[in-house]
Amino acid sequence: MDHELRRPSNHQDSITPASHPGHQPGANCQPLVLRISESYCLTDRPGKLQNLHMDIKEYLADRQTKVEQALESLLPPDSGPLTNHIEAMRYSLLAGGKRIRPILCLAAAEALSTSAEPLLPLACALECIHTYSLIHDDLPAMDDDDLRRGVPTSHKKFGEAAAILAGDGLLSLAFELLTSPLPDNPIRAEDRLRIVHNIAVAVGPRGMVGGQALDIEAEGPNRPTAKPLKLEELHRIHCYKTGALITAAVQTGAIAGGADQRQYAALSVYGQQIGLAFQIVDDLLDVTADSATLGRATGSDAARGKATYPALLGLEKTRSKATEAGVAAISALEIFDHHANPLRELARYIVSRKR
Amino acid sequence: MDHELRRPSNHQDSITPASHPGHQPGANCQPLVLRISESYCLTDRPGKLQNLHMDIKEYLADRQTKVEQALESLLPPDSGPLTNHIEAMRYSLLAGGKRIRPILCLAAAEALSTSAEPLLPLACALECIHTYSLIHDDLPAMDDDDLRRGVPTSHKKFGEAAAILAGDGLLSLAFELLTSPLPDNPIRAEDRLRIVHNIAVAVGPRGMVGGQALDIEAEGPNRPTAKPLKLEELHRIHCYKTGALITAAVQTGAIAGGADQRQYAALSVYGQQIGLAFQIVDDLLDVTADSATLGRATGSDAARGKATYPALLGLEKTRSKATEAGVAAISALEIFDHHANPLRELARYIVSRKR
Repeated sequence: MDHELRRPSNHQDSITPASHPGHQPGANCQPLVLRISESYCLTDRPGKLQNLHMDIKEYLADRQTKVEQALESLLPPDSGPLTNHIEAMRYSLLAGGKRIRPILCLAAAEALSTSAEPLLPLACALECIHTYSLIHDDLPAMDDDDLRRGVPTSHKKFGEAAAILAGDGLLSLAFELLTSPLPDNPIRAEDRLRIVHNIAVAVGPRGMVGGQALDIEAEGPNRPTAKPLKLEELHRIHCYKTGALITAAVQTGAIAGGADQRQYAALSVYGQQIGLAFQIVDDLLDVTADSATLGRATGSDAARGKATYPALLGLEKTRSKATEAGVAAISALEIFDHHANPLRELARYIVSRKR
Repeated sequence: MDHELRRPSNHQDSITPASHPGHQPGANCQPLVLRISESYCLTDRPGKLQNLHMDIKEYLADRQTKVEQALESLLPPDSGPLTNHIEAMRYSLLAGGKRIRPILCLAAAEALSTSAEPLLPLACALECIHTYSLIHDDLPAMDDDDLRRGVPTSHKKFGEAAAILAGDGLLSLAFELLTSPLPDNPIRAEDRLRIVHNIAVAVGPRGMVGGQALDIEAEGPNRPTAKPLKLEELHRIHCYKTGALITAAVQTGAIAGGADQRQYAALSVYGQQIGLAFQIVDDLLDVTADSATLGRATGSDAARGKATYPALLGLEKTRSKATEAGVAAISALEIFDHHANPLRELARYIVSRKR
């Protein structure tokens, strides 16, 4: 059975919208929603994405290039006394990667018909934060991984002290980028503050760092009971560790794009659901993909006896769960017109990705 | 010879103002400056600080209490699944400490006749950042210290992974505090953004983290030459590692207090000079103080063969250098009236402190 989200077969939206704060009962009778149903639905139809007027691979490649170029230009040049420190940051940041978080941020702003280009520094900040978290998670005291994005991990290349500091530097740099003046000032200062606050919460104790702390604790000697994690506990770890930053990425684009309350709520649900889908698929890939495709070690979750969705639910149910999350993400977008198609395609991509 | 800054003997300011961007030639003829000269100068006079109408020890104790209370109330409660992570953050943050950075921030705002109380969350953010830097600097891969603020270091108490994450959590929490809504909105959103940006730069690759990277590199096996550090290189490390955050603390108070360009420049010079004084005295205390007084290991710089001011200049010249920096800091404040007396006394305290 193929659990990937399908392209439309009959131009009719066949799914039931997920219940979420931004969802308005009866909203699918309005012309705006009709336009969306015409342009996008989840049932199967082979062939190109003519009705979306986009190719997700092309879109991703274009956005990845833009993000890479922006990252390159925004990073401090690697010269002077700080050469080694900056080289360590650049090494991990520019080693490739899917750039999903910055791309989601830009696509969320686009869903609101806002030009994405001026928001690149904010999008890059999200990638700096993600990269910092990878560097620290890979450390010997944490997951002790040797390979990341297809190259040796930061501490393998530069030593542990330099790796810790590269992570610290990238987190600080992210907040520098988030608060740097932007040409033509496209976002009100109040909204910039809200963006920074939202991201800070998402990456702190009640977000990404808290999730990593729970994850380490669940594996480590301090685990209070010997019982394996329940699905609910695993879900909490993932929501904190991965979901929070992905949701914040979408919310950043939403705030920058001037979302009203309803739009913000809908985009938040979208973010939460694709965050969940992303992590479930990550767990799946650790079982099913090979190390060369993934650019990092695989099978490590099982080797550590780590609780994962496949370990708790089996492969089949895990795939269904990823699909459900993808469907719920796309359903949350029903109040948006075709400008949200990149977000819809990104949800499909996240569920069906192979690396 | 006693190098500590002296209290006034004759109510005349006997020092030459330091040259700094905010200094206006001839400004000391203006009534405002006469008032300051009457209230404060650097020559010797024994006795109480009657002319300043303040006792620095009382002032520090009062401010420390206020900062401690605010930190206690601003930290997430240590309950629920994140108990261990939050306990690790609270352990290091609430283990005492001089609270110099938050106090400087509040005192800088007071120098501009601005009420300090509403700024406590910003001041606390600076302490979160300082504490994060101590936790990471103490790690085995960095300085490998066992004792901090009189208690075992974070990694000794909670393990290395939890310590790294406690530091990461505190840095994120700092940016959360810096952008949290404040009652009655005492600072314009544009100024809040400027504050956050300034702090992010000060703690990132071109600031605190960069300084630590240079410091580790100067000691570590990657040191490109075998030659010991020159004074100029040591000075650069200190400016980045310690000076940048202390300067940013003062600048935070300055921006929050609505400083104009001249006032901001003067307070920046003050911050740079006491930042320098602070680090020089830190080096001195590592040689002259005992571990119990200091709450951390002493003699560790010499044991590591680390370049320090005393190692490069000798004790006597190092003391002179600290005094010079204190004098320059106080001179930079000549455009301010008696509201800047806490800053003046803080400069004296920083030069003469015993721990």
